[in-house]
Amino acid sequence: MLPLSEVKVLDLSRVLAGPYCSMILADLGADVVKVEMPKKGDDSRAFGPFVNGESAYFMSINRNKKSITLNLKAPKGKEIFKNLVKKFDVVLENFRPGTMERLGLGYDVLKKINPGLIYAACSGYGQTGPYTDRPAYDAVIQAMGGLMSITGFPEGRPTRVGASIADITAGLFTTIGIMAALVKRKSTGEGDMVDIAMLDSIVAVLENAIARYEITGKVPGPIGNRHPSITPFESFRVSDGEIMVAVGNDDLWAKFCQAIDKPELIDEPKFKINPQRVENYDALKPILQSVMAQKSVDEWILILEKAGVPCSPINTIDRVVNHPQVMARDMIVKIHHPTAGEIKIPGSPLKFNNAKVIFNPAPILGQHTDEILKELLNMNENEINMLRNNEII
Amino acid sequence: MLPLSEVKVLDLSRVLAGPYCSMILADLGADVVKVEMPKKGDDSRAFGPFVNGESAYFMSINRNKKSITLNLKAPKGKEIFKNLVKKFDVVLENFRPGTMERLGLGYDVLKKINPGLIYAACSGYGQTGPYTDRPAYDAVIQAMGGLMSITGFPEGRPTRVGASIADITAGLFTTIGIMAALVKRKSTGEGDMVDIAMLDSIVAVLENAIARYEITGKVPGPIGNRHPSITPFESFRVSDGEIMVAVGNDDLWAKFCQAIDKPELIDEPKFKINPQRVENYDALKPILQSVMAQKSVDEWILILEKAGVPCSPINTIDRVVNHPQVMARDMIVKIHHPTAGEIKIPGSPLKFNNAKVIFNPAPILGQHTDEILKELLNMNENEINMLRNNEII
Repeated sequence: MLPLSEVKVLDLSRVLAGPYCSMILADLGADVVKVEMPKKGDDSRAFGPFVNGESAYFMSINRNKKSITLNLKAPKGKEIFKNLVKKFDVVLENFRPGTMERLGLGYDVLKKINPGLIYAACSGYGQTGPYTDRPAYDAVIQAMGGLMSITGFPEGRPTRVGASIADITAGLFTTIGIMAALVKRKSTGEGDMVDIAMLDSIVAVLENAIARYEITGKVPGPIGNRHPSITPFESFRVSDGEIMVAVGNDDLWAKFCQAIDKPELIDEPKFKINPQRVENYDALKPILQSVMAQKSVDEWILILEKAGVPCSPINTIDRVVNHPQVMARDMIVKIHHPTAGEIKIPGSPLKFNNAKVIFNPAPILGQHTDEILKELLNMNENEINMLRNNEII
Repeated sequence: MLPLSEVKVLDLSRVLAGPYCSMILADLGADVVKVEMPKKGDDSRAFGPFVNGESAYFMSINRNKKSITLNLKAPKGKEIFKNLVKKFDVVLENFRPGTMERLGLGYDVLKKINPGLIYAACSGYGQTGPYTDRPAYDAVIQAMGGLMSITGFPEGRPTRVGASIADITAGLFTTIGIMAALVKRKSTGEGDMVDIAMLDSIVAVLENAIARYEITGKVPGPIGNRHPSITPFESFRVSDGEIMVAVGNDDLWAKFCQAIDKPELIDEPKFKINPQRVENYDALKPILQSVMAQKSVDEWILILEKAGVPCSPINTIDRVVNHPQVMARDMIVKIHHPTAGEIKIPGSPLKFNNAKVIFNPAPILGQHTDEILKELLNMNENEINMLRNNEII
């Protein structure tokens, strides 16, 4: 049995942060019903590239979910939504704050309908504070939250993380918030509202940058691919690319020097122990760089792995999807989609001894509308046809 | 009542991924007891900078936890640990796979002692697969998992994210796995083992890079601070730094052109709608860049915010901690530490209507040893003194 198989989620979210959260809930067995605008659906259904008209982006983040169409601007659509809310444990949305209230479907309204409801709102800046009403994009949040200022090279420009990490970490914290509320509700029967912001989430994942700044008064800057206090612990240019090498302690230093055929460096007083290597970095780096430049990525990886020195090629995505460990962990899964055919998407990092995530394809728009209206609200064909003719569904 | 106030966590983890997970559990009200090596403790207690001898790194990630010392290599230490396991809901560790088994304290042993136990293991590569035994560092995982290959500028080098995002996302997924197991146990009474890998976690947060590659066969590369399919949506150099601007649609394009005093660009056929701006990026970028270079960060932010164009300074950490929205959301909190005095650390992004995270200082090494041995295992002063003299605690 999957851990969340008794949990039902009514999901109004679109594009990334919210859908990433509901993907995890669905992977864990929750019954996730995506509520989409008739005709149009989740904006990301229109994001290319496409396979037989289906968006790769949408398919990879909406697996294991159901889809119903429902026009929440129409009074009849609101009525149906409220009736559905009675049957669900969780409502999830990632609209700009105030949107649900304007629709007459805010938490205050819904909790009267379903007092045990867990209502999760995921937004750019959160439901409170002077920035609450602003539109947010991942790139703006990465800039505002300080992550870009510590990513990149000292001589270069502040750098955006290549994945939408502000959306994704907000999605992860929203998942955690929902689950915490579920655990509590199992004891108390009480529902709650969860309010997650992308900006808060980025501040929370800056690691030690904030504590370091508060204590030293020194503003942390980008340090490229180096470790701040261990040497050598960085990427080196090699003959055909670049590799990451992590000489985490003095034992590894000896192994590394042997492996690169520079045994004379091991006991060289300037480099013998890590604090000296950090202090004499400017002397050490050119020596190592000139040796590393002499062989290729694959040659160095073979040599360093044999010597037990932690290292890795800087894998491009084609190498990642074929990586033996990635494959052994089922992190690339095949899904058969009714329209798109067989596609490969990332698997789930959530591994349990007593449960295994399964993967069903993302729904086509409104695929489960009839089924859900019949099963949960006891509607008949006639009622459903009338709703469809009136563009409510 | 905080959501996890009935949950007890025995935490063997060190440094970052595991402690980040148990920090979230503790923030949510769980009773987290950190088990540390006598005399030495968590490695990160030795990471600078320090305030009155206390590590800023350690203090920021170990708030709200208790600490006991216990030597797990000594038979008496193992016995005490097993007795403690009976009283806890969750055991968390982030050792290299196999370590707990070698100590005689693997999941198979512990689940016999406590069948409802949730055992969470967080490691570099996971408990299975050909890489399972290898040591992992965040930088190596960011390289191996493909994140570095899509971060940075096309003409530049692959770039490590400036925060330890492989550790942190693994910590977040471990938190999710533990909570999912808690929800299930509330229904079934069954425990489970959760197995989270840093490499899996990075693959899972690559966003759409994998689906895109699988469908197009084109290997995604770094695109700097640009959006792949929206223009202008990137950072611009201005007179005294750089700012992020996100012109997400054609309405915003018109507002942006007015704001930068280039109204003639709005209806210019090459730039009128987004697909044209993307196609004619090489013509548009220099025009915009030369305008943007004429004013400062603060001048542009004032102008663009007034015009309703999403934008942000690329904030350094000193600006982040004083940002009005960050402050309004309590994302910087003051803690009074008994040794270090008043320090500021990041707050929690987990906001609930019916519960509020509180912040107690990180424990000093072994601060709660006596209390816990007395309360949970009914030991007396004599027994505790003998354990201390024998370096068991």
